[in-house]
Amino acid sequence: VQRGEIIAVGSELLERRLETNSLFLADELGALGVEVRFKSVVGDDEADIVAALRTASRRADVVVLTGGLGPTADDCTRQAVARATGKRLRRLPEAVEGMVRRLAAWGRTPTPAQFRQGLIPAGADVLANPVGSAPGFCLRWHGCLIAALPGVPAEAEQMCITALAPKILAYAPAHGRGERIERRLLHTFGISESDLDLRLKEVGIAEAGLRLGLQASPLGVTIALTACGRRSHSIDPARQRQADPAHRLELAVQLVKKEIGTYIYAAGNETMELVVGRQLAARGLTLAVAESCTGGLIGHRLTQIPGSSAYLDRVAVCYSNRAKRDWLGVPAPLIRRVGAVSAEVATAMAGGIRRKSRVSIGLSVTGIAGPDGGTPQKPVGLVYVGLNAKSGRRSREASLTKEFRFHGTREMIKLRASQAALNLLRQWLLKTGGS
Amino acid sequence: VQRGEIIAVGSELLERRLETNSLFLADELGALGVEVRFKSVVGDDEADIVAALRTASRRADVVVLTGGLGPTADDCTRQAVARATGKRLRRLPEAVEGMVRRLAAWGRTPTPAQFRQGLIPAGADVLANPVGSAPGFCLRWHGCLIAALPGVPAEAEQMCITALAPKILAYAPAHGRGERIERRLLHTFGISESDLDLRLKEVGIAEAGLRLGLQASPLGVTIALTACGRRSHSIDPARQRQADPAHRLELAVQLVKKEIGTYIYAAGNETMELVVGRQLAARGLTLAVAESCTGGLIGHRLTQIPGSSAYLDRVAVCYSNRAKRDWLGVPAPLIRRVGAVSAEVATAMAGGIRRKSRVSIGLSVTGIAGPDGGTPQKPVGLVYVGLNAKSGRRSREASLTKEFRFHGTREMIKLRASQAALNLLRQWLLKTGGS
Repeated sequence: VQRGEIIAVGSELLERRLETNSLFLADELGALGVEVRFKSVVGDDEADIVAALRTASRRADVVVLTGGLGPTADDCTRQAVARATGKRLRRLPEAVEGMVRRLAAWGRTPTPAQFRQGLIPAGADVLANPVGSAPGFCLRWHGCLIAALPGVPAEAEQMCITALAPKILAYAPAHGRGERIERRLLHTFGISESDLDLRLKEVGIAEAGLRLGLQASPLGVTIALTACGRRSHSIDPARQRQADPAHRLELAVQLVKKEIGTYIYAAGNETMELVVGRQLAARGLTLAVAESCTGGLIGHRLTQIPGSSAYLDRVAVCYSNRAKRDWLGVPAPLIRRVGAVSAEVATAMAGGIRRKSRVSIGLSVTGIAGPDGGTPQKPVGLVYVGLNAKSGRRSREASLTKEFRFHGTREMIKLRASQAALNLLRQWLLKTGGS
Repeated sequence: VQRGEIIAVGSELLERRLETNSLFLADELGALGVEVRFKSVVGDDEADIVAALRTASRRADVVVLTGGLGPTADDCTRQAVARATGKRLRRLPEAVEGMVRRLAAWGRTPTPAQFRQGLIPAGADVLANPVGSAPGFCLRWHGCLIAALPGVPAEAEQMCITALAPKILAYAPAHGRGERIERRLLHTFGISESDLDLRLKEVGIAEAGLRLGLQASPLGVTIALTACGRRSHSIDPARQRQADPAHRLELAVQLVKKEIGTYIYAAGNETMELVVGRQLAARGLTLAVAESCTGGLIGHRLTQIPGSSAYLDRVAVCYSNRAKRDWLGVPAPLIRRVGAVSAEVATAMAGGIRRKSRVSIGLSVTGIAGPDGGTPQKPVGLVYVGLNAKSGRRSREASLTKEFRFHGTREMIKLRASQAALNLLRQWLLKTGGS
């Protein structure tokens, strides 16, 4: 495996903006057999970029810079790379061809500032920008491949895939050729990080030469399995398969699923709302949601999925008791007797929203998001989730209610409650899917 | 101003998790007169941490490491700092005092792994952890102050404020003493980055020795004004004030407000939902929201504010036309005639939700979030926002409707539409607040 390093350029990344390109790049480089070992962020300062690049190029096989390629005066990645490598900047017409053509179609010509983007260190290859105007470039220097990509995420991503990846594959020194890093992500909800750690110890992941990572967030704990290796050139097909990192990962995923499969709701880039939406769409079921403490977050998440209007009929955020009565038919005496945050009201909300909207499934949440409003009997973080389903005229009504006690900030409790509600729906869909 | 550098430790930060601590730390260090010039991320690898620390300590006055202080075997920041500085690790009972006390209260004693957290490089001071178990530490080495904080954001933040800040102030070498970096953020909506750039050029920010940064997001463009300097020791009070960075910033903020004030909706850490909620609460007004394409995002944002139940009565996410008819009273023939995404339906939704919920203000959004569902007449990104208000029995009904054309992904269009709706409400509150 080759050693990689990412340098993100931009003063705003030091002060107030999260750097996001490096996560995508680390994945993409990993698939090309380059393991990212260091990432750094520097401001729009030529000397600082030079310093970062010198440090990086001494210890890495591949260095990818992002940002600082725009037309304005503070964009100085081009000059910094030229200075660090001792090359001169040359104007390459090829570098600005795409931009010139695009502007010409609108009857315009590039400004002198835009033309500066055609300056590329001598000996470097241009990396075409399929979605924006700033070209990138890459060059070999002292056994290291140095590449410069734009800072705009969509441009960096496209340029990496279409222009940089082939260069890295062509460059790969002999010792790293054919090696690659593969990763599988499994997303769990309802089991703690330490319980997962204990239960996965017995699966033998380290023994299989894989790396296990756990990462907790309000949406649950994500299991990351990483393998690194190359296809074996053994003539024995069994040994070939054993060496293949993708094959070893697949075996480990099966073992993990066998051990804690009920907690896994999604894999890879998939989300809870996507998994649930796909099930609803496939089975032609419709959904309505009655939210209280989550305030619309469940609706927001469900509608992040394109095409969700096929199964989501409506969402009622009933912050007031009056709204719970008007829209969900929750009786005022019930709320007075047991309180708005109770299993009984969650049950009534789920049934009410289903009947009022004439859909197959009603989902409800009521709870105390905090930071105020808790009592010793009903503390901040107490959440009830309800589900009510009736899929045909003659089918029996099903009703489920579950209690949770979450901790954390208001935002975390809202996230956890939304995840708990969607997970209850997922489990119900799973249980009834076979019948 | 002293030079600062942040090193975040954790393999997950290289692969799949955004590093967030450094933004808070950069702000906090800035206020202490330390400008963060480099940030880097390294995995849980002792040699890599040593390499990063050596590079950093050669060029910075203050180096802050975060992460790698936990009790597990892959936490190796303690060893790395000891190795890089040539110090031995010593067990300091003081370092684990807090943890021992907390565990004792539950009738437990620390495990050997937890006791490892008491190992601190010789000569280092312990930084107490007010909210967790891992202690931090800091030491002086070759003219550089090196500090290690935990990776958990809440712990890093509290330890920085309560334990590290006093050490940095006490350490400040003579040349940096008393200097500080101050920053003001102004959040705008409805004006493009390039228009802001043009209009702010004439305000003379650079001439006043301030730095201007613009940062665009789906929620608008944020203006960052940065000043750096120290209080003058001149006996002339006018000159003293002129040199003071806070004073210079205040003047610049006034000039910016004069030039583009109508676009500014919030300052500092404040959000649109906080600003709008504060106005509603102060004036005793109540709100109900009818969402379509935003899917619950407006409700989610409004309910992020503690105490929002005082003014938010309910939110109806009406994805189906049936829901728009049942809950908002939007006539089916109107939808058939002009379509659900139209100014007329936005107007009807806002009026409908206000009357049905008996609140002072109804707010509505209808639009096409994409990626599918657009037509040449009604493209993806077309959004209508409506507002209907009637604050007393005898007051006149006010009605506003506005059309927007947004671009971007489904998620970006939802964010922009939610911001446009809340901004319309903000502007209406502003306009009517004086009467």
